[in-house]
Amino acid sequence: MDRPLRIIDLLLYAAEAFPSSGVVSARPGGITARATYPKVAARVAQLAGALQRAGVEVGDRVATFAFNSARHLELYYAISGMGAVCHTINPRLSDDQLIFIINHAQDRMIFCDPELWPRINALLPHLNTRPQVVVMTDAAGMAPMAGEVLCYEDIIATEPQTIDWPTLPERTASGLCYTSGTTGAPKGALYTHRSTVLHALYLSSSLPDSLKERRRVLPAVPLFHVNAWGLPYTAPLTGASLVMPGSSLDGPSLFALMDQEEVTSAWGVPTVWMGLLDEIDRMGRLPKGFNDLVVGGSAAAPSMINRFEDMGVNVCHAWGMTEMSPIGSQGNLTAHYDHAPLSEQRAQKAKQGRRMFGVDFKIVSDEGVRLPHDGKAVGNLYVRGNSVISAYYNNAPATTDAIDAEGWFFTGDIAKVDPDGYLTLVDRAKDLIKSGGEWISSIDLENAALSHADVAQCAVIAVKDDKWGERPLLVVVPVGDAPDPAVLIEHLAGSFARWQLPDSVVFMERLPLTATGKISKLTLRAELDPAMKRAAR
Amino acid sequence: MDRPLRIIDLLLYAAEAFPSSGVVSARPGGITARATYPKVAARVAQLAGALQRAGVEVGDRVATFAFNSARHLELYYAISGMGAVCHTINPRLSDDQLIFIINHAQDRMIFCDPELWPRINALLPHLNTRPQVVVMTDAAGMAPMAGEVLCYEDIIATEPQTIDWPTLPERTASGLCYTSGTTGAPKGALYTHRSTVLHALYLSSSLPDSLKERRRVLPAVPLFHVNAWGLPYTAPLTGASLVMPGSSLDGPSLFALMDQEEVTSAWGVPTVWMGLLDEIDRMGRLPKGFNDLVVGGSAAAPSMINRFEDMGVNVCHAWGMTEMSPIGSQGNLTAHYDHAPLSEQRAQKAKQGRRMFGVDFKIVSDEGVRLPHDGKAVGNLYVRGNSVISAYYNNAPATTDAIDAEGWFFTGDIAKVDPDGYLTLVDRAKDLIKSGGEWISSIDLENAALSHADVAQCAVIAVKDDKWGERPLLVVVPVGDAPDPAVLIEHLAGSFARWQLPDSVVFMERLPLTATGKISKLTLRAELDPAMKRAAR
Repeated sequence: MDRPLRIIDLLLYAAEAFPSSGVVSARPGGITARATYPKVAARVAQLAGALQRAGVEVGDRVATFAFNSARHLELYYAISGMGAVCHTINPRLSDDQLIFIINHAQDRMIFCDPELWPRINALLPHLNTRPQVVVMTDAAGMAPMAGEVLCYEDIIATEPQTIDWPTLPERTASGLCYTSGTTGAPKGALYTHRSTVLHALYLSSSLPDSLKERRRVLPAVPLFHVNAWGLPYTAPLTGASLVMPGSSLDGPSLFALMDQEEVTSAWGVPTVWMGLLDEIDRMGRLPKGFNDLVVGGSAAAPSMINRFEDMGVNVCHAWGMTEMSPIGSQGNLTAHYDHAPLSEQRAQKAKQGRRMFGVDFKIVSDEGVRLPHDGKAVGNLYVRGNSVISAYYNNAPATTDAIDAEGWFFTGDIAKVDPDGYLTLVDRAKDLIKSGGEWISSIDLENAALSHADVAQCAVIAVKDDKWGERPLLVVVPVGDAPDPAVLIEHLAGSFARWQLPDSVVFMERLPLTATGKISKLTLRAELDPAMKRAAR
Repeated sequence: MDRPLRIIDLLLYAAEAFPSSGVVSARPGGITARATYPKVAARVAQLAGALQRAGVEVGDRVATFAFNSARHLELYYAISGMGAVCHTINPRLSDDQLIFIINHAQDRMIFCDPELWPRINALLPHLNTRPQVVVMTDAAGMAPMAGEVLCYEDIIATEPQTIDWPTLPERTASGLCYTSGTTGAPKGALYTHRSTVLHALYLSSSLPDSLKERRRVLPAVPLFHVNAWGLPYTAPLTGASLVMPGSSLDGPSLFALMDQEEVTSAWGVPTVWMGLLDEIDRMGRLPKGFNDLVVGGSAAAPSMINRFEDMGVNVCHAWGMTEMSPIGSQGNLTAHYDHAPLSEQRAQKAKQGRRMFGVDFKIVSDEGVRLPHDGKAVGNLYVRGNSVISAYYNNAPATTDAIDAEGWFFTGDIAKVDPDGYLTLVDRAKDLIKSGGEWISSIDLENAALSHADVAQCAVIAVKDDKWGERPLLVVVPVGDAPDPAVLIEHLAGSFARWQLPDSVVFMERLPLTATGKISKLTLRAELDPAMKRAAR
């Protein structure tokens, strides 16, 4: 029997099958708001009614500009459920990028957090459309706003708590997320009901211990980008509860929230967990109930993985991309390693894991030759599957660039794959350092440097070199006083050939981050590579 | 990105992601054969090569006539993988039914177990086609066979261990299973790649604790009927291993196999578990590692559920149908009951559970009015979803009868649904007893009778009555000597109104079973109802 896969069915299922689970939202001032899935579903019906009343039609883009909260989750379901496209906007983008994105998407409405309203309000005059702005708060929270702005709780208050959800073809567009794009204009990854529901099903079958009823999952990864790794969809499907941290992702805030809400599983990028680790050290204990960490977005350093694992927290090193819905692989150990020495288990956990069911990998040489999955051959990583985008939104040139003749999507990553399917990212293609005709992996050098006790954070970038083409430069945020650079480089010498070692070390107080929380190597190169500095002048 | 959902991808994934998991097959004589999923995948490629060499084409039906084994699993994947239709035939059907089914399906080949070859061989002259017969054994096992019969291991031996699996549209037919049909000719439920892969994904997200890597699952439910409840697909998807019991489903054989193979989860019909319970009592312990039972096919009596639960085995009461791939609902308790009294938890476990994600329920009065899910309204149960068949194979009249104007499939069950989604089957529509204008549930009476210590098995059937229309008759297989009928009926009196009680009790040594292992009430009525006996003369 052919029934279209629909996103709204995930929530309607949760409302019926998991009435005790739901969503907790941390709000400014230490307040937490709670809603069970039946309550969320009722409010989502109200919100969809309000969208219809506002004239939103099938295919229209409706934007969100918000941190992680129950209201943000409600928007995910109400917008896609009625057939419109939920366009999540990353507040960490520059004004120019925001203006470009909103104009490109032609958003009909923008829902924003109260704390983000001034930002949107300032952008409005620069847009070539006039989106209706709705502030995600109640009447009391509206006091500081001005102009033609609506209040979230006001517009949904009088709508009915049930709605007849339309039966849409499963390839109807449902979501839109622009990649921040270190070069060129942002590109919009377009998701469909089919890609989203299948991604949720794939993910739930891949992580059965993290995602099920009675688990409480904290997405530190934002709903405003990469669909919070699919948790807004997979949690209701599996009956897991969501604990939404709002905008406070510092270690003490996260620890307090996780401890109070007995979060079992936390998902996010490495930089966030470095902050949590510091707080765990300070408190001398783990947050109550916490035993599972899913880390991705950037490669997690082995030293960080080991610290969590030593405390009894299972670390699942995952990998994905905006264009992949986003999960591609997850690193929970297969039974094959159950009796392996700890060192081997840990080495395996530092890799990016095995592909999820439904996602295929291929690695290809620069000459276009397909390479074996033998754990040795290194090449360009391509992916394929129902949860991989088929096109960028209204951007044929970018689509053509990204997808090869056989329909595979190029990730921009350089990788190798073991015979048992474990993926190892060697580098981002653009971060790989080409020295004297040979490649050096910036990730490998960074992981080795992070194992030194005096290194808090670090990055390795390429700097132009007249003789070798490029040479690696190590940038370090020290734990305390800056250590001797020669000692740091000598620390690396055990794991690398001499010519692969950085020639010098630069110390900084903090590393620049991209809008998605990753270390911005583009910014570092612009600041630290004399050749690039010259070019920029 | 649009990739067709393909059954073969489930196995290819297992071969890569779960190399330590696989299939154990019990063979006659206490021998067990083992194959990891990589080995299974290699043999499946060989088998598909052999099918192609034999001239099998996309859309052809290839039949299996076999008990649960790795070879039977290989057939599931090789036949569907190459685009043909895997037609599983139930060896417990009558010769007339087998001839009808094979002729109706126009099977091109029939793969049979050695022990079932004589049966097939005797049928061949009565078929209007000439299917090629292949015996599922090696050269040594072929000695007793004669005629134009091929040997499974021979035909695959020289084929390559990899194959370029075709990319088929996901709605390509993949499987066929005829319902045994207590009335009328058998009807073929036709499955597709889409329905099968989605069913596997739905099931894996519904039972995360039963189905994952490091779990060892015993399908006592046959691969020759209702897809062994989807385990041949869901186990590879999730990395669970399969322990195939062959044809020996008696308590001692099952106990010995489960104990040796440390089966964690066993799936099958209540009658099989009654035998296992006896053996557990005899041994004074559970099989090693066993902690999870999935029971369905017929309603499981509370007394049986309680015996397993009291020993620490989690009982999941599931419900489904051939036409539903087959799982519709599962009865693991929601968190809502975590702190409920034990009696309430057990009462909930006796129900048929909550719908799986992807399966919708509606209950409808005889007049066609949709009834509320309020735990009170009783009506005809209809289902809808991607894992529900859209048609019977080459049988338009039966399809039209089964599916209503809105596209819902009528299950033939009378049921009610609680507000939190728990399904309770009141009776099969045809088994409900109509006495004096009021309905009596045969299942309720049976469950109550089974709670009496002297009752090993029982059935309640309707017998014609001149005054009341129908009256309930209790048929009992006693544990030892037959107890006093009046005592048995008095045992029921506490839970039923006087007019609902059976008027008399018949004792039998064993109950007749249908081809799918359920108690055959049709046979009982033919034997025990004087009115029907007269009609049959």
